[in-house]
Amino acid sequence: MLLLIPGPVTTRPEVRQAMGRDLAPWDNDFRQFLARLRGRILRLAGGTDPAHAALPLQGCGHFVTEAALRTFLPPGGRILIPATGAYGNRMIRLAQEAGRVAVPLPMGPADAADPAAVARALADDPTLSHVGLVYSETGSGVIHDVPAVGAVVRAAGRRMIVDAVSAFGALPLDLSAQPEVDAVVFTANKCLEALPGIAFAVARADRLRACVGNAGSWSLDLADIYAGTLQFGAGSFRFTPPAQVLAALDRALDFLDAEGSAARLARYTANMRTLYDGVRGLGLVPWLPPERQGPVIVNVHVPDDPAWDLQAFVDALKSRGVLISNFFTTPAPTFRVGCIGAITPADMARAVQAIDAALTDIGVTHREAVHA
Amino acid sequence: MLLLIPGPVTTRPEVRQAMGRDLAPWDNDFRQFLARLRGRILRLAGGTDPAHAALPLQGCGHFVTEAALRTFLPPGGRILIPATGAYGNRMIRLAQEAGRVAVPLPMGPADAADPAAVARALADDPTLSHVGLVYSETGSGVIHDVPAVGAVVRAAGRRMIVDAVSAFGALPLDLSAQPEVDAVVFTANKCLEALPGIAFAVARADRLRACVGNAGSWSLDLADIYAGTLQFGAGSFRFTPPAQVLAALDRALDFLDAEGSAARLARYTANMRTLYDGVRGLGLVPWLPPERQGPVIVNVHVPDDPAWDLQAFVDALKSRGVLISNFFTTPAPTFRVGCIGAITPADMARAVQAIDAALTDIGVTHREAVHA
Repeated sequence: MLLLIPGPVTTRPEVRQAMGRDLAPWDNDFRQFLARLRGRILRLAGGTDPAHAALPLQGCGHFVTEAALRTFLPPGGRILIPATGAYGNRMIRLAQEAGRVAVPLPMGPADAADPAAVARALADDPTLSHVGLVYSETGSGVIHDVPAVGAVVRAAGRRMIVDAVSAFGALPLDLSAQPEVDAVVFTANKCLEALPGIAFAVARADRLRACVGNAGSWSLDLADIYAGTLQFGAGSFRFTPPAQVLAALDRALDFLDAEGSAARLARYTANMRTLYDGVRGLGLVPWLPPERQGPVIVNVHVPDDPAWDLQAFVDALKSRGVLISNFFTTPAPTFRVGCIGAITPADMARAVQAIDAALTDIGVTHREAVHA
Repeated sequence: MLLLIPGPVTTRPEVRQAMGRDLAPWDNDFRQFLARLRGRILRLAGGTDPAHAALPLQGCGHFVTEAALRTFLPPGGRILIPATGAYGNRMIRLAQEAGRVAVPLPMGPADAADPAAVARALADDPTLSHVGLVYSETGSGVIHDVPAVGAVVRAAGRRMIVDAVSAFGALPLDLSAQPEVDAVVFTANKCLEALPGIAFAVARADRLRACVGNAGSWSLDLADIYAGTLQFGAGSFRFTPPAQVLAALDRALDFLDAEGSAARLARYTANMRTLYDGVRGLGLVPWLPPERQGPVIVNVHVPDDPAWDLQAFVDALKSRGVLISNFFTTPAPTFRVGCIGAITPADMARAVQAIDAALTDIGVTHREAVHA
């Protein structure tokens, strides 16, 4: 079964098999393992010890995004968040429910965040201490220009939080070149091709020290995780970690090291291109024009045919070995197909064939888009 | 290797092997699986649908404890927490950092929480809306009487939150008989004999509906998880779950069903008795008298011998196939040995032999306690 939902992704059997042992957190062997794993994550982010720290947090991407918002903004602090789509909106909600003030920057749902618009918004409102940006907006498939937005944030003397959940490990990131970034946050189960259950922030040590006491939550306090690192070492967890999931991540990083992030991005891009061109060849209409289409997820307009039914289509695809989401996150009805994970363009060609057959299975004959 | 840390526990190979597949959350097969799993958890707690709901939360026990505190107490709300030991203290800190007022009820570190003292404290302070109680205090090894404390809470017209992290699945719990309990919280990796990465609250539906808006955190809002359950069904997760860890838990529950909670408690009690009597036979002194010793963890006074060194002892034990914690959580120096997990009295007898040999390995000849 190909998992194209996109994320949790299709993983290698070796990665899943790394979860097969009982593990004792806080045991000295585990401490060494964890300290080494954190170092690997730090380097992938372009961070350097001791200027940055890789901070693991049990759970999912939303948790670590909230943790970054709570830690780097005080209660009532104000953050500009480009409304990139479903995941930009989630960052807005996470900030608001945590008692921070999220100021959305309106933009078109298929647009890339505009650095000039960010610069204007920051100039207009000096109370905005931060900008929050989703790197790869899964809601649309658009990749946002983190260095370009970061440059205007830096020029304005403000700070930045980057949600790289569906980007980290494949799309380039270099914290050493972006001092305005307080933290980048992500999970193991997307472009790192590991399993769900663990999230990370890579954050600036000076900011972690300066932000002690902001969080209003022991569980979601990155400054406290950092303080624990200083006190007990990088091999120590505050609370019981998902040890097997961490073991799987470490194994997955072996494969990332062997492939290289640039080659992984090239593979995902080839996956996307195979899918994008393939569905167009079937008469379907991708939601994004080719020049805006990122390598992580392709949203496809649903066919303008009365036989269309998303769940029936998903079920038909599944019976053909391809699993996609049974929901959509674009303003117009689409189906979503992920291009990331331990999969190749050959897999995507198989997915295109399965899409073709599944449409026939459910009786769709007219494949042009409803809204295209 | 026997994991006696205690928790994450030693698990069965079948449980770990259940993590070997890629899984797609939100897929209809996964939804059915998850809804069924939540029903199993609900029944184990003595809850009934729709009066109660089993609410899964990614992460660890601290996260779900904080989530319960945030959800059922408003900001500034006041909770009485018997200071049972290290984990009682953690509940106090979680509440305080979340902006709730935790009022510790002082007590001896080896005592069981006194229902009469709880009743007096509640009578003296009508602003205390809640009592928070650790069921099995891993810091001491004492089991606290949840029904007896609950009865005085109920009589006083107050509410209760039960931390059953190291109790749930073995020690009895019947929410149907304890209407004063807003929520009981626990994780998969203790007496349920599964893997770390997922936590649960089983909570009253009426209280979840009444407490909308309290949490001040989208991530840690049990009322929002419940609202999502009502809207999208019990098979739906708000955010990406640790799907493999959930699959392992489901498999572990098969073994719990086959054994029964009462038989599991009897096995753990036999494990504890083998260990307790065994270390006494070696000349060591358990931290608790036999009548207060619970079945989950035995703390043992360190020997009054200049050769004693906790890490050296842990290393020597590990080389003999037994892994215990390299820290202690009692007021006096001890070493801690867990009695829970997929282990038997025969394993504990082997652990006692290993303890005997490890003491010799590190040169301890005088085994009487420093502080006994």
